[in-house]
Amino acid sequence: MKVYDYWRSGASFRVRIALNLKNISAEQISIHLSKDGGMQHSDEYKAINPQELLPTLITEDGHRLTQSMAILEYLDEIYPEPALLPADPIGKAHVRSLANIIAADTHPIQNLRVLQKLKASGWDQEQVNEWVAHWIELGFNSLEKIINQADVQGQYLYGDEITLADIALVPQMVNAKRFGADLSGCPRVVETIERLLQVPAFDKAQPQNQPDAEV
Amino acid sequence: MKVYDYWRSGASFRVRIALNLKNISAEQISIHLSKDGGMQHSDEYKAINPQELLPTLITEDGHRLTQSMAILEYLDEIYPEPALLPADPIGKAHVRSLANIIAADTHPIQNLRVLQKLKASGWDQEQVNEWVAHWIELGFNSLEKIINQADVQGQYLYGDEITLADIALVPQMVNAKRFGADLSGCPRVVETIERLLQVPAFDKAQPQNQPDAEV
Repeated sequence: MKVYDYWRSGASFRVRIALNLKNISAEQISIHLSKDGGMQHSDEYKAINPQELLPTLITEDGHRLTQSMAILEYLDEIYPEPALLPADPIGKAHVRSLANIIAADTHPIQNLRVLQKLKASGWDQEQVNEWVAHWIELGFNSLEKIINQADVQGQYLYGDEITLADIALVPQMVNAKRFGADLSGCPRVVETIERLLQVPAFDKAQPQNQPDAEV
Repeated sequence: MKVYDYWRSGASFRVRIALNLKNISAEQISIHLSKDGGMQHSDEYKAINPQELLPTLITEDGHRLTQSMAILEYLDEIYPEPALLPADPIGKAHVRSLANIIAADTHPIQNLRVLQKLKASGWDQEQVNEWVAHWIELGFNSLEKIINQADVQGQYLYGDEITLADIALVPQMVNAKRFGADLSGCPRVVETIERLLQVPAFDKAQPQNQPDAEV
């Protein structure tokens, strides 16, 4: 397998976690998101992923897969151990819902291209920081309420097994810290992220631990 | 089943389509998204869905499910006919990826709460329109390139069967028209949406055909 990724890409971070959890080795091909206006917009990468976003996974038999959450579901189907979704349909629905609170309703509103668009409209860094912080606080505070009320309790977002929801969540912490989100309203979410970062598959996937990291 | 929805909610529109396709009857409970600052923010609805977003599905046995794409996956698992995902893992990955280009990377950037936040920051209607149009054009133009290059071709986004991707896509057309997106770059996406709107399950789910429509 090959994965086009970048150390700072939150969506790539998710795929790295899943590959590590399932002990799948994949060659990492770094696509620099800011050099020369962003290598994701190069003709070469556009031919691989017309959406000009990371990550892209190339499977063993040469299929090109895009969109991190779709890739995670694929990996979970092909390499079922450890399972990233509960076995029961209601459990699956809850986990996918928790995952999408981050993957649909939090992350895409404040990823790189959105912040670039806001800056191009004249926003200064302070306005951009407030924007990022706002959406992360809203997402994390919703998660906090939902996990506190849930029937299934445990050390992670949905019980005691790591799920797609945990994988979607953890990379969002990078932006939360970088843009100064106020996380005082969601102590359990923060604690869960810290617990997950102790798991080697998560730790190894962190931005600063990637071969292309510039830190 | 019961579904908390609203005629103008794009995410609710998706769930209505799936319920119709699978011939499941569900009681619709209308949550007015603008009256009195938005009934989704009422204490009563917050207790049902702490994210204060639509839709919420209440299953036959009383489970509360949120997030439209998670609900669609649940319905597809419990009521497998007609299937909304291909049987093969690669096909599933492609369909989920197409779906997420809209459900994660297009819709959440220009839904109601985001536009309200932009207006609160001082943007006028013209700036808001340009914002919405920009993200829809980017999403639809990506889809156009991807479906034109895909191995699997047919009358819908992924072959000749209706999938989660079609269901995620169609409701986005409402905002595309309302905010004046330029769709000249994606004729096949537009044609596919028009074809899908001829399918009774999609037509019946349209905003103007809901009991709470104000048209």
